[in-house]
Amino acid sequence: MTTPELSKTNGSTGTTGAPVPVTVARGDGIGPEIMDATLRVLTAAGARLAVEEIQIGEAVYARGHSAGIEPGAWESLRRTRVFLKAPITTPQGGGFKSLNVTIRKSLGLFANVRPCVAYPPFVPTRHPKMDVVIVRENEEDLYAGIEHRQTDEVTQCLKLISRPGCERIARYAFEYARRHGRSKVTCMTKDNIMKLTDGLFHRVFDEVAADYPDLVAEHWIVDIGTAKLADTPEAFDVIVTPNLYGDVLSDVAAQIAGSVGLAGSANVGEHAAMFEAIHGSAPTLAGQDAANPSGLLLAAVMMLVHIGQPEVAERVHNAWLATLEAGVATADVTGPGVGPVGTRAFADAVIDRLGQQPTTLPAVTYPAGQPQLAVPTATARPAPAKTMDGVDVFLHHDDRDPDALAALLREAGDGVGLDLTMITNRGVKVWPDGLPETFCTDHWRARFQSSRPGAASRAEVVDLLRRLDRAGLDFVKTEGLYRFDGEPGYSLGQGQ
Amino acid sequence: MTTPELSKTNGSTGTTGAPVPVTVARGDGIGPEIMDATLRVLTAAGARLAVEEIQIGEAVYARGHSAGIEPGAWESLRRTRVFLKAPITTPQGGGFKSLNVTIRKSLGLFANVRPCVAYPPFVPTRHPKMDVVIVRENEEDLYAGIEHRQTDEVTQCLKLISRPGCERIARYAFEYARRHGRSKVTCMTKDNIMKLTDGLFHRVFDEVAADYPDLVAEHWIVDIGTAKLADTPEAFDVIVTPNLYGDVLSDVAAQIAGSVGLAGSANVGEHAAMFEAIHGSAPTLAGQDAANPSGLLLAAVMMLVHIGQPEVAERVHNAWLATLEAGVATADVTGPGVGPVGTRAFADAVIDRLGQQPTTLPAVTYPAGQPQLAVPTATARPAPAKTMDGVDVFLHHDDRDPDALAALLREAGDGVGLDLTMITNRGVKVWPDGLPETFCTDHWRARFQSSRPGAASRAEVVDLLRRLDRAGLDFVKTEGLYRFDGEPGYSLGQGQ
Ligand SMILES: NC(=O)c1ccc[n+]([C@@H]2O[C@H](COP(=O)([O-])OP(=O)(O)OC[C@H]3O[C@@H](n4cnc5c(N)ncnc54)[C@H](OP(=O)(O)O)[C@@H]3O)[C@@H](O)[C@H]2O)c1
Ligand SMILES: NC(=O)c1ccc[n+]([C@@H]2O[C@H](COP(=O)([O-])OP(=O)(O)OC[C@H]3O[C@@H](n4cnc5c(N)ncnc54)[C@H](OP(=O)(O)O)[C@@H]3O)[C@@H](O)[C@H]2O)c1
Repeated sequence: MTTPELSKTNGSTGTTGAPVPVTVARGDGIGPEIMDATLRVLTAAGARLAVEEIQIGEAVYARGHSAGIEPGAWESLRRTRVFLKAPITTPQGGGFKSLNVTIRKSLGLFANVRPCVAYPPFVPTRHPKMDVVIVRENEEDLYAGIEHRQTDEVTQCLKLISRPGCERIARYAFEYARRHGRSKVTCMTKDNIMKLTDGLFHRVFDEVAADYPDLVAEHWIVDIGTAKLADTPEAFDVIVTPNLYGDVLSDVAAQIAGSVGLAGSANVGEHAAMFEAIHGSAPTLAGQDAANPSGLLLAAVMMLVHIGQPEVAERVHNAWLATLEAGVATADVTGPGVGPVGTRAFADAVIDRLGQQPTTLPAVTYPAGQPQLAVPTATARPAPAKTMDGVDVFLHHDDRDPDALAALLREAGDGVGLDLTMITNRGVKVWPDGLPETFCTDHWRARFQSSRPGAASRAEVVDLLRRLDRAGLDFVKTEGLYRFDGEPGYSLGQGQ
Repeated sequence: MTTPELSKTNGSTGTTGAPVPVTVARGDGIGPEIMDATLRVLTAAGARLAVEEIQIGEAVYARGHSAGIEPGAWESLRRTRVFLKAPITTPQGGGFKSLNVTIRKSLGLFANVRPCVAYPPFVPTRHPKMDVVIVRENEEDLYAGIEHRQTDEVTQCLKLISRPGCERIARYAFEYARRHGRSKVTCMTKDNIMKLTDGLFHRVFDEVAADYPDLVAEHWIVDIGTAKLADTPEAFDVIVTPNLYGDVLSDVAAQIAGSVGLAGSANVGEHAAMFEAIHGSAPTLAGQDAANPSGLLLAAVMMLVHIGQPEVAERVHNAWLATLEAGVATADVTGPGVGPVGTRAFADAVIDRLGQQPTTLPAVTYPAGQPQLAVPTATARPAPAKTMDGVDVFLHHDDRDPDALAALLREAGDGVGLDLTMITNRGVKVWPDGLPETFCTDHWRARFQSSRPGAASRAEVVDLLRRLDRAGLDFVKTEGLYRFDGEPGYSLGQGQ
């Protein structure tokens, strides 16, 4: 696997005592307040940081940068490779791209790590034993954002799952579990329906799990798995999932643990890492000294570990736990009978307790001298033998009679060397032998196959498309049908 | 919109007193036991049913029918158009298609309706006020099951969302809410990321909502919406979502309400309806007279309403509630200090209470004489003006240098009339002006566009593909780029 010619994140320089360059953005809404609180705590705790500030968010979008970031800011990010980010306000409406998705994907931040912990009785929760870490694949799945509308009625989004993507996130989850003394990694997918894509994720997870015999590995179907998490989160330890499921699961986990104001997250890649709170810019709270800085502070704790200052991370984290225990809380997590403090006062309370340990809640330890958590690369694999069976041609066709469409297609395609074998509508076979009850849209798939497996060619596909065009058939997309080492790389039609 | 020439489900004949033909399948595992219990209760309650049994599931798969159902069974389903189905055991491994998905899609059962209700204190729950109905789109989204592997590294699944599909499910949700005296319908999507597909669902929901000013309509992003449901289900009333989100949400809702053994579901379409418990065949409980028949029984209650026997539905449902109140329970929902009864004894206890009303839990009423709940069809719309801007060509290409690939593509495509404007890898723009940190797979998208919007043609696409093939470039899929009434029907690249 080719990797760009860049040195790795300079994670170990921190232990030498020299300040580590870190890019910081104060963001929008409550962002500046919680960033200020966080940086004050870090400084008081002795963090050795050389902060470089960049501007992102509303003001930058307003200056016409559709992703909310300026070219100069990329330069800082690519040099420091460590980003402590406050939340921003994403403008509504089309034309704007999510800054987070852009940064994650451009910098290859493939792992989104989100610990969700309950702090009973100091933060009210129905799930006092909860201590779950969600490791979410951060770059692919439906979040690739590749969408097409191709007929009057039907729109499409591509879900992409790659083998190296699966391998890296699975390996990261196991490495993380081992490093943090956790005992189980749970994979969640919907591979009973999506046998190729989610099936790949599940299969690679199982392969990787074999390299970690010291850890328990299990798989849940994501629907019942999410339900189980919502009901009995103590059944889980580390959870690893594709992007979309992880997005939902991690919000469920954060919410039922206590408050979205309490959780931080790390976005980790081979070349860089970004640390942020899980919540947004909460514009209604902005400027009132009322927001909880804890999410960003715990994200900063993860950053300190990442840049090789674990002793500072430990000091901050334990002081924060001691602060919770002292009943000092912002309004969002105030228990019964405790008056809330403001953002600044909360940060002061944490600073006052630097050096203290919690007494009821378990104290954390981040052992010094450990090398940075390995960011896995995918194993090089021999290329499978790839042959072509045919092509799925998708058509925009208004008439709703599948038999008539089949007749048109067979006439137009006659002589190409690829035979029409099936027509589906939204995945359901409607020809041959369809049911009249099947609801049909104006978006049809016609499967053309060579009579011998592996004997089709791209030239035949081009020829077929040329003939369909001449016959006035509006082909709107194609999907090649391939075998890899003899095994078909495409699903059957529903009802086939 | 064309609809097949079939008369509607004969829902109103039940009120005349004549038995209504109903197809019944006993399924696998605990299926036969819970079906037996359910049919005994229905008979005792005076349901007028002419039962036709069909066989589905394990035995049928074993006879070589890859969808678990035989041709003769379809005949009964298509004639009675009402299906009371026990769970089946789906064989593991490739080559088998989900029977449920096949039946839903072949019969056009677009709406999956699942009420999730808490029964405190009789069934332990953390959410005593919960009373939510999930209305899940049942036919499209990723569950179309259209998957392709096209390179060594990357697999793909298509997410399809159609306008008529969105309109029918949204309208069904509002009709359902009105009929059942509910006040709010909540839509959940991820349209901040998937602006075309989930955006369509959200937009159509808003359009349909305007026809129901008596009902509150709201939208949540599905990640935080699922978290809210898991934490505070009493904030919701009726929820309507695309297929995948609905699958997850409805399992969360059923689980936190009390038990998966308690919920039934209806799968409703224009021509037919299927009623089943939400749980599976629980093979470990089979043959022990231990399973809870409640899920199937409540599904049968929905069936009775559907076929025009609401007075029988009401009698069964209230007797069931009175049974819960009496502390009669199967082992899965036994509260503290109550001994469990078996499947048969539970059914007997319900039969003993036919005619009784619950005293603590609210009694249900199903008013007689109402016409069947209208199953909406989609509104006919004028066809938008469609023009073509170009094509996205996806390539299997092993070298990871985007600039070199761009040079090859430009040389090969020279003279076609479509210009290379962008290359992305998993949706992220890598040419022009990519970042070296972006992780690249062997799956590339090259966007070719006409210099003037709307001026591209299919013939140019064929010509382009022919030239790419000749240059040895392995195009594995294409997606046409269109405008509808002048508006682009395709997304930008991330970072574009
Ligand atoms: N990573 C990011 O930059 C990021 C992430 C998510 C959202 N956003 C953006 O943020 C903006 C607002 O989004 P949103 O309102 O959906 O979500 P949000 O900013 O997370 O706020 C939702 C609610 O959560 C509470 N909350 C969040 N953070 C809190 C804190 N630190 N302390 C106390 N309470 C807190 C507040 O509740 P009360 O009102 O009840 O006090 C707030 O109204 C949007 O523009 C969105 O696009 C950015
Ligand atoms: N519609 C369908 O036909 C359908 C739906 C889902 C699954 N399935 C199939 O069913 C098979 C088993 O799947 P699964 O084990 O994942 O899910 P499941 O059959 O729903 O069973 C999971 C567990 O839920 C409990 N349970 C489910 N129904 C119950 C009932 N009526 N009374 C008491 N307890 C009940 C049992 O828990 P305890 O063991 O703790 O008692 C059971 O082991 C698979 O082959 C699956 O494909 C079919």
